[in-house]
Amino acid sequence: MQKEVTMNNMNFETVALDETTGSLLICDQTKLPGEVAFLRLTKDTDIWNAIYLLQVRGAPAIGVAAAIGLWVVTKEYPGTDFNGFYRFFSKEKTYLASARPTAVNLSWALERMDRVCLAGKSESVEAIKKILHDECVRIREEDVAVCRSIGEYGLTLIKDGDGLLTHCNAGRLATVKYGTATAPMYLGAEKGMRLHIYADETRPLLQGARLTAFELHEAGLDVTLECDNMSASAMRAGKINAVFVGCDRVAANGDFANKIGTSMVALAAKRYGVPFYCCAPTSTIDLATSDGSKIPIEQRPADEVTTMWYARRMAPEGIGVYNPSFDVTDHDLVTAFVTEKGIARPPFDRSLPLMVGRP
Amino acid sequence: MQKEVTMNNMNFETVALDETTGSLLICDQTKLPGEVAFLRLTKDTDIWNAIYLLQVRGAPAIGVAAAIGLWVVTKEYPGTDFNGFYRFFSKEKTYLASARPTAVNLSWALERMDRVCLAGKSESVEAIKKILHDECVRIREEDVAVCRSIGEYGLTLIKDGDGLLTHCNAGRLATVKYGTATAPMYLGAEKGMRLHIYADETRPLLQGARLTAFELHEAGLDVTLECDNMSASAMRAGKINAVFVGCDRVAANGDFANKIGTSMVALAAKRYGVPFYCCAPTSTIDLATSDGSKIPIEQRPADEVTTMWYARRMAPEGIGVYNPSFDVTDHDLVTAFVTEKGIARPPFDRSLPLMVGRP
Repeated sequence: MQKEVTMNNMNFETVALDETTGSLLICDQTKLPGEVAFLRLTKDTDIWNAIYLLQVRGAPAIGVAAAIGLWVVTKEYPGTDFNGFYRFFSKEKTYLASARPTAVNLSWALERMDRVCLAGKSESVEAIKKILHDECVRIREEDVAVCRSIGEYGLTLIKDGDGLLTHCNAGRLATVKYGTATAPMYLGAEKGMRLHIYADETRPLLQGARLTAFELHEAGLDVTLECDNMSASAMRAGKINAVFVGCDRVAANGDFANKIGTSMVALAAKRYGVPFYCCAPTSTIDLATSDGSKIPIEQRPADEVTTMWYARRMAPEGIGVYNPSFDVTDHDLVTAFVTEKGIARPPFDRSLPLMVGRP
Repeated sequence: MQKEVTMNNMNFETVALDETTGSLLICDQTKLPGEVAFLRLTKDTDIWNAIYLLQVRGAPAIGVAAAIGLWVVTKEYPGTDFNGFYRFFSKEKTYLASARPTAVNLSWALERMDRVCLAGKSESVEAIKKILHDECVRIREEDVAVCRSIGEYGLTLIKDGDGLLTHCNAGRLATVKYGTATAPMYLGAEKGMRLHIYADETRPLLQGARLTAFELHEAGLDVTLECDNMSASAMRAGKINAVFVGCDRVAANGDFANKIGTSMVALAAKRYGVPFYCCAPTSTIDLATSDGSKIPIEQRPADEVTTMWYARRMAPEGIGVYNPSFDVTDHDLVTAFVTEKGIARPPFDRSLPLMVGRP
C-alpha cells in the first residue's frame, strides 16, 4: 500500500490557478518557514512584484506562475478585436518577463503562451482566452509530469533506509509539485521507504533551512539540517548513501551550474565514494554551451552575507565580500544526470545529446 | 622598512595582565564585531564565567587567561603559611579548570602554575606569589613567541600579492598576539607585502565573519568575507594561492581535527592545486593518537544552527540537526604543518615526531 505522504501532509501546491476566482495562487516563500501564507493575485503589478521579490522562486515555478499570470491579466481585456487584444497581451507579456530577465523558464513559458495566442488569431478573442487558459494549465501539468518522471527514474537509484543529502532547494517549492532533487524522496516516501534526508542550510539565503527542511518535514519525511560546511563530515561518518541536487544549467560536456557550494558537496562525495546525482529537466541541458567555463556566474549583493537574516550586522564594516550565487561542478564528479526522459551516465558528451533528442 | 601593521592599528591584546591594578584584562569576544569592549577581572567567579561564556576563547588564549587569572586570585591570600596558601591555590586551580574541561591548554597552563608553586614551597608565600606572577607572564610571552615563530616559518611559504584563505579564527583573538594561521599574514603585512585575505564566515558561530574578518581589517589588511560554501569557487577562479588554517589536535600520521568545514576546504585545495598549510604549535601534536579516526568529535546544540544570530528561527520546528564542532582532515590533503620549530612535510609519521623532539 502506498502512503500519500506528499498529498496528505502538504495541503497546498506552490503555484496554482484558482478556477473559481480566475486568479493566480502562490505560497509566499519569503514568509517561510515561520508562516505559511498564500497570495491570491489578479493585478499585473502584484504578479510582477511576486516574481521580483522572490515570493515565488525556482525557475520552473516562476515559469508556471508567469504563464498563469499572463492569462489571469489578459482574460480581463474587454474588447473583441484580435489586434487590440494582442497589443494588450504583448505589453503584459513584456512587462512580466522583465521581473527576472535571467530566469530562463520565465521567458520560455511566456513565449509558449505567445505562440498559441498567435496560432489562434483567426478565432474569436473569447476562444483565444480559452486557448491561453488551457496552455498555462498544460505548462503547469507538464511541470508536474516532468518532476514526477525525474522522481521515478531517481527512485531506481535509492533503497529503503538510505541517507540522502541535498543542497539548496530543488524541491516542490521550486516547482509545482515534487521538485527535481526531492522528487525521488517524495516518491520513495509514498512507497513507504524510510529515508533519512540531510539538508544543507545553504548560505547566504538559507533556502535549505527555510524551504527544503520545511517542505520535507511538512510532508512527513525524516529531515536533518546541517550547515554547508558539515556535509563532508556526514559522508565520512557514513550517514549519506547518495547526493541529489538540482541545476540551473548543464553544459554539453556535463559540467553544470547550481547553487553555490554544490561543487564542494560533489568533491566530498567523490572522496567518500558517495554517488552524486544531478536532477535536470532536459530543458536545462544547454548543448550550445560547451563546458562549465562558458557559464556566466551571477555575483550577488554583499549584505546577503554580512547582514541579511541576522538580528544585527555580523561582520565588520569596510571589508570586501565574495558572494557568487552559483558554482560550476565538473562533469567528472557527477555519477549521473536524472532527467524526465531517463538517466544519463558518462561519457556525458555522448549521453546528454541522446537524452535531449529522445522523444 | 617594516610597517608595524599589527601594532599600530590593533591597539589591544586579547589577554593581558594589568600590572598597575593586578587584574586580568580581556577583550570580550562575544561583543565583536559590533563593540570592542574590555573586561578587567579580579574575582574568581568572573574569570570562570569569562572562560565558560566564551568571552575569552581559542585554546592558547584560554590557557594564558587561566594562568594570569590564577595569579590574580591567589595573590590576595592574606596568610603567610605555605600549606594554607597551597590549599587555597589548589581549590582555585580546580575551579578555573572546570570552566571548559575539554580545552587542553587550560589544564596545561594551570598545571604549569602548579608545578612552580610546589617547586617554591621552601620560599615565603610572598616570594611564591612573585614566582607565580613570573610564570603566568612567561606563559603569555611564550605564546607570543610561538605564534611569531609560526609566522616566520609561514612567511617563507607566501609572496607579495598572494591571495590567502583561512577558515574559522586561528587568529590573534585565539591567542595573545599574531594567532597561528594568521601569523604569516600579520608578519607579511609588517614587511609591506600586499596580501589579499579570504575569510570563510564559519557557520554556525561565525568566528570567521565576527572575529577573523574583524581582526585582520582592524590591522589594516585587505580582507574579503565569503560563506563557507564559496571557497571552492574562489579557488577555481584563481583567487587563492595558499590556505592557512589552525588545528585543535594533530594525530601521529598527520590527520588533524579543526573547526568543522576544514576538510572541505582541503578537498577543494587539492582539486585546484592550492597548497594547504596547517599552523600547529607542537603542543597540539598528539603522538599518542595514531590517526584521525581516534579523535573524539564534539556535537554542539541544535539551536546554534537553527536560531542563534538570527532575528528569528530560520528552520522549521521538529527537524533533526547535525552540528559537529570539528571535522578531521586526512593527512594526504595537507601540504605541510607549520610549527614554531619548523615546517613538517610528508611523510608526516616521520616528520612530526622529529619536530616534537626538536629542542
